[in-house]
Amino acid sequence: MTMKIEDIGRAVRETQYAVRGPIVARAQALERAGRSIIYCNIGNPQSLGQRPLTWVRQVLALCEYPEVLASVPEGTFPADVIATAKRVLSESKHGLGAYTDSRGYAFVREAVAQFIRERDGIEADPETLYLTDGASKAAQAVLRLLIDDARDGIMIPIPQYPLYSATITLYGGAMIPYALDEKAGWALSRETLERAVEDAKARGVKPRAIVVINPGNPTGAVLHEANIGMVLGFAARHGLTVLADEVYQENLYVPGDKFVSFAKVLETRGLIDVSLFSFHSVSKGFLGECGHRGGYVELRNVPAPVRDELTKLQSVSLCANSVGQIVTYLMVRPPRPGDPSFECYDRERRDILDALKRKARLLVEGLNAVPGILCNAVTGAMYAFPSLTLPPGVTDAQYCMALLEETGICLVPGSGFGQAAETWHFRATILPPMEQIQAVVEQIAAFHVKFVAERAAEPEDEPVPRPAPRGRKITPA
Amino acid sequence: MTMKIEDIGRAVRETQYAVRGPIVARAQALERAGRSIIYCNIGNPQSLGQRPLTWVRQVLALCEYPEVLASVPEGTFPADVIATAKRVLSESKHGLGAYTDSRGYAFVREAVAQFIRERDGIEADPETLYLTDGASKAAQAVLRLLIDDARDGIMIPIPQYPLYSATITLYGGAMIPYALDEKAGWALSRETLERAVEDAKARGVKPRAIVVINPGNPTGAVLHEANIGMVLGFAARHGLTVLADEVYQENLYVPGDKFVSFAKVLETRGLIDVSLFSFHSVSKGFLGECGHRGGYVELRNVPAPVRDELTKLQSVSLCANSVGQIVTYLMVRPPRPGDPSFECYDRERRDILDALKRKARLLVEGLNAVPGILCNAVTGAMYAFPSLTLPPGVTDAQYCMALLEETGICLVPGSGFGQAAETWHFRATILPPMEQIQAVVEQIAAFHVKFVAERAAEPEDEPVPRPAPRGRKITPA
Repeated sequence: MTMKIEDIGRAVRETQYAVRGPIVARAQALERAGRSIIYCNIGNPQSLGQRPLTWVRQVLALCEYPEVLASVPEGTFPADVIATAKRVLSESKHGLGAYTDSRGYAFVREAVAQFIRERDGIEADPETLYLTDGASKAAQAVLRLLIDDARDGIMIPIPQYPLYSATITLYGGAMIPYALDEKAGWALSRETLERAVEDAKARGVKPRAIVVINPGNPTGAVLHEANIGMVLGFAARHGLTVLADEVYQENLYVPGDKFVSFAKVLETRGLIDVSLFSFHSVSKGFLGECGHRGGYVELRNVPAPVRDELTKLQSVSLCANSVGQIVTYLMVRPPRPGDPSFECYDRERRDILDALKRKARLLVEGLNAVPGILCNAVTGAMYAFPSLTLPPGVTDAQYCMALLEETGICLVPGSGFGQAAETWHFRATILPPMEQIQAVVEQIAAFHVKFVAERAAEPEDEPVPRPAPRGRKITPA
Repeated sequence: MTMKIEDIGRAVRETQYAVRGPIVARAQALERAGRSIIYCNIGNPQSLGQRPLTWVRQVLALCEYPEVLASVPEGTFPADVIATAKRVLSESKHGLGAYTDSRGYAFVREAVAQFIRERDGIEADPETLYLTDGASKAAQAVLRLLIDDARDGIMIPIPQYPLYSATITLYGGAMIPYALDEKAGWALSRETLERAVEDAKARGVKPRAIVVINPGNPTGAVLHEANIGMVLGFAARHGLTVLADEVYQENLYVPGDKFVSFAKVLETRGLIDVSLFSFHSVSKGFLGECGHRGGYVELRNVPAPVRDELTKLQSVSLCANSVGQIVTYLMVRPPRPGDPSFECYDRERRDILDALKRKARLLVEGLNAVPGILCNAVTGAMYAFPSLTLPPGVTDAQYCMALLEETGICLVPGSGFGQAAETWHFRATILPPMEQIQAVVEQIAAFHVKFVAERAAEPEDEPVPRPAPRGRKITPA
């Protein structure tokens, strides 16, 4: 007899990942049937018209097929592009077609270490760096180390990026939710963290680690030095490992705001007792090279035997893809002022970041103009996460599905990220092109008014309960 | 306090993967210290001088940076390369920088389905295909579906490729080893399979699936239609899912031998009760594009709700890398006779396969000329797995470490793959360049004679026991 769904383990079946869940599946079906869909569900910049950086693609083309240099007229590729491609081919020893070291190319790990040194003014060690197929795979590998059974608790923000809830469920661990305060711009407070730990211990869960996403996904909020210090102090007090998801570190939109890394605060405060894993990616920022699956995790205060376990886990599937590793290299070692590629690189970079800043403001202002929608400022990352006032019995999942059917706009309901009880949200990316953002806002506004009026008028003969999650329920602490 | 090794779960710590284990780590250390190392431990063709196919790299370069076409003189790229790159960019919709569908690009899945139709003369459905970061990740995803707890047993050959033992350990399942008969050219018998199932049931393990590697890794043996039919019939009788690792399907070295897929035998025998997962990769064959991490798994007789679980698992880390997917496309849809690229493609392909065939014979003949080394013919895949006669108390791990120190040749000891009690082996790839293969054989021969003589002469004052594996012990049934 063939496999049956009942044969599949509980952990797998309970895992949920709304960013590519049923609403996206419906959007794809509509698209196959000829509808035009605007995918605001996922931070996938190049699918919404963002152009790749010339610098990145020129080097990749030469690394894949260096023979083309013999055919192109001089000047086709800038000298620094050619030099960088030659360096990649020489340092990788065998080109992009060979397996790399399980931790990733040594020269890329050294370049990442140098990037961290320059970014933060602290020491960094390539031996504690791992290159991965995007940051998601890195986060999964670290959670794999931390979770052994159902008592191993991982603190996650509510709302959170569902990679974390999905992976904790899949690995059979326990989520320890801590609520971000929407009314205070998604602030993170020590009291909430302490209460979450107490609650977890009361139910027999041992807190092992805390996940912090900064800048925030889906919240768009940015942590400052004092917040980060508070989290690290809290982690030190409770013996927690810290997972710092810093993939949006280039996406800050408030003039004067500067990204502060967990690594820097950890080092400047001399917190040698806190193990830190921090993640970065080529998929966000201004590269948006999602398809190339490049990312890294940096380890601090993680003893060598634990690092060896991570190396072993990485080795079982051999290595991260070589091209993603090279894109990571190009991200951390961009053209410098005076280099032949710098002007083009810098213009493309500024154009993308400036547009994101304008689109973030446009989206938030547009949404806040709709009665029943309330949105905090998007000060970082790539998303707005507004709260919705909906008629009784109506969920945000129903709202997003109806919006999709009516307008072709694909959002993710707040339930996919976790949210305070009795609140509803959606997550929308700020990524569509400027002219489309305007249309998206107008369509959401028109839909919202109509949807709320219709649903409020409907007799509640069949009340829709708040959906019972199939997996462990995420409720705020 | 920071993480400690004791905090890491048992499953993770017990996982072992010898192909990149301590001997490889030592080889890398020697190399950093200036020694010249010949890596025969891993099927990594381009690290041993195999050149990438021009067809593959030309298309990839154009997909990464299509703008170069405006600069190169006409004729630099063959017309079919240009057409293929344009097709990739058009079908992928957003180029290589956007996340793809979680199952992989639809047009690549359709091309794989067409490849299977043409290879096997059977129907194939792109909806049952998943593109992955190499075949290893595909095998891990399928094992994730099959293993829920320590009673879930997966049958694996002994010797096996340690991806399987490592992943089963990591996921907390049970291995059910079945022995291949070395004396009969690594033959696979129904009696052995039946006995393995009985033994498993007797110890409370429920057999869920059987892994078959064809052509064999590390054995180099090729299964024929009757063997495959026997395995499928056995699986049908016991309600087992079949995992067919067919990544070496292009690597057959006996004139007249033809690869027979599990899918074809399943369909021609009408075995609608057997769920089949078959794996393929861009890393082996004649492409050897290991670094690009491309591969796929095809599902047969797997009900839609189970497929949906696999889709969900893939979606949590978003998608396989786009470039690996494109390499898969180029593998399954190569230039045809008459296409402008065909002559070059075909010449490069034949040169690689012819060399592998000659090197396989050279390696086996050379090893068999050494007293105390006995090697079956390498009729497929990329490895020789000879048995060693060693002095009492000496292990193959010690042998391989001593060989490395003395000659710089890096092999994997048989203990990394599982082997019959009281037997010793190593696995050596057939991949080094022809002139190096000859030197490798001569160095192993000289080392072997000297090592055996020295160790046999040593007093056994400190007898070395057969090493107790840190994980679940693999013993033949």
